[in-house]
Amino acid sequence: MAKPRTIVPEKALRTLVSDLFVVSGTSREHADTVADVLVWANLRGVDSHGVSRVPRYLELLESGEAKARPRIQVDRFKSAVAMVDADSAPGPVALTRAMDEAVTMAREAGAAWVAVRGTVHTGAIGYYTERAAQYGMIGLGIVAGVPNMAYPGGSGAAVATSPLSVAVPAGRHPTVLLDMATAVIALGRIAQHKAAGTPLPEGAALAKDGQPTTDPALAAVPLPMGGAKGAGMSLVFELMASGLTANPIVSSFHSDDPEGRKHRQNALLMAIDIAAFTPVEQFRSLVDETVETIKALPKSDPDGRLLLPGERGSRTLDERILKGVPVPDALLAKLVAQAQARKVAVPEGIPH
Amino acid sequence: MAKPRTIVPEKALRTLVSDLFVVSGTSREHADTVADVLVWANLRGVDSHGVSRVPRYLELLESGEAKARPRIQVDRFKSAVAMVDADSAPGPVALTRAMDEAVTMAREAGAAWVAVRGTVHTGAIGYYTERAAQYGMIGLGIVAGVPNMAYPGGSGAAVATSPLSVAVPAGRHPTVLLDMATAVIALGRIAQHKAAGTPLPEGAALAKDGQPTTDPALAAVPLPMGGAKGAGMSLVFELMASGLTANPIVSSFHSDDPEGRKHRQNALLMAIDIAAFTPVEQFRSLVDETVETIKALPKSDPDGRLLLPGERGSRTLDERILKGVPVPDALLAKLVAQAQARKVAVPEGIPH
Repeated sequence: MAKPRTIVPEKALRTLVSDLFVVSGTSREHADTVADVLVWANLRGVDSHGVSRVPRYLELLESGEAKARPRIQVDRFKSAVAMVDADSAPGPVALTRAMDEAVTMAREAGAAWVAVRGTVHTGAIGYYTERAAQYGMIGLGIVAGVPNMAYPGGSGAAVATSPLSVAVPAGRHPTVLLDMATAVIALGRIAQHKAAGTPLPEGAALAKDGQPTTDPALAAVPLPMGGAKGAGMSLVFELMASGLTANPIVSSFHSDDPEGRKHRQNALLMAIDIAAFTPVEQFRSLVDETVETIKALPKSDPDGRLLLPGERGSRTLDERILKGVPVPDALLAKLVAQAQARKVAVPEGIPH
Repeated sequence: MAKPRTIVPEKALRTLVSDLFVVSGTSREHADTVADVLVWANLRGVDSHGVSRVPRYLELLESGEAKARPRIQVDRFKSAVAMVDADSAPGPVALTRAMDEAVTMAREAGAAWVAVRGTVHTGAIGYYTERAAQYGMIGLGIVAGVPNMAYPGGSGAAVATSPLSVAVPAGRHPTVLLDMATAVIALGRIAQHKAAGTPLPEGAALAKDGQPTTDPALAAVPLPMGGAKGAGMSLVFELMASGLTANPIVSSFHSDDPEGRKHRQNALLMAIDIAAFTPVEQFRSLVDETVETIKALPKSDPDGRLLLPGERGSRTLDERILKGVPVPDALLAKLVAQAQARKVAVPEGIPH
């Protein structure tokens, strides 16, 4: 089951990814942002949202679905709301810009919502909310995407596995970082079960005929977490992010318009300036105390442990910054081949 | 299983509840607000959050845990953030005030977050978010409360079943109204299973010993929806609502301080002014189209139907406004006895 992997220093990985985007027409600044967002996911162990996405991102740039030189427009509508019209910029570029705008506006207004219109694959949205936490703010993000998840009573893809992320800065402890999809199981996890030949848990997916299945080979769409709850969350994320940006995805996807099936995403990011409410140090202490309270609770298995949102990712990050990022050999070979085909020098530390 | 019920006209119920609060020391304005919030839940079929709560609310007023004449203080910290210090006002009073503040501020700033510090039982929070929708805004609300839900790996009550609500105004269709707890199953539903002698679904609750159970008589705490996802949502709601109001509940509950177990809640309510982003009529049309798209999707059971968040509640409301609210006879007798003991006239339409 375990695929052969090579440990790559994070800096080499970052350089390779950035160079691949620059040679594809992206500015160095944007290329560095994309590399930062993707490698961040790998560092935290969320490999499904890391550099494994590079080949697909490059395809989107080639096909024009993502633009290498987008004309991003930022409109500050009011003191606490703005919109970033992404012009098909890659998600990392559009959402980083949007969260930076939200943080700047929240300094003045106390909180700010920034909508992102028409971007392409946001990456792991925890990156953006954690960015707000680095400025001593609470970050919150939701995304609307192309339908790939079931809806209670429906027989196929109805809404998207749209994520919610909230980041809350602590003091002594790592940022509490919730970053969750609204589905029971990720599409990537279904693929892992299929590769391993292990059954899916009950209630995780529907087959093509709309009936529940535990056979990963038959599974066509994941089910929403908590039934109506996860589906309802995904639907209101669509109405909020796509409604406020006047860029509908769900209704367009299910219409006769072939353009409706084109990959695109909208998002809403928010920053709340803690200092507007209460002294930040006091807030951080309260978070620390709550974290320590949870860790100290009685356990159902005495040898078990209670994990905080983002705790495992933060530990993996500390480890991978030191030791490097494990990259499956097949993926690494593909990235190296793409670099060589584009005459990009492969950085030291990456075997080729 | 079906308890004997009497159908009561909503106006009579409203009058009875308001009069009971006035005679307990509450101002008429606050009493009407409490009655409005509780009867709203009954009208929508959420009977667990309706007038069944009146006896408990009156107890809280008598014990002083809730204050009949609270000195509510509103601080507008910045253009988009404020705090309502509830001084133990009943939740309906504090949260209605907070959402009205959020709506007023959002008219200027485009969006506003209002935190509520130290209130007592918020009631159904969909009431407040739907209130924002009535003003053509998106409403969002979260609550932090006293721990009554398990946490992955823990053996007892760790965090609260804290709800999330989002209300999005439509055009032709009822407001899309998500109002969900973060638990798999409501405490009230466990009690219903116990009364009916039917087993709980798998993965819904833990027994006192911290082990999973499907026996409703052994069930001590509900499990979080989606495991780490529901528990993580509840935890970040605590950090946000209790952190920003500097009024910790979870860490205080699990400490040695006996005050820490006292019932209290904090909340965060938000309004987003749609008009700041896009013409409201266009937004409403987009919501209508999305609602109709979902309703028209292929069904797993051809005779089944796909429900939108809040759709069932909205239909029940239309019906109950016309026909009246079914109230269990035992509850009605208790309310009537409380009225008579306090020399409150029982309104016409309520048998006594």
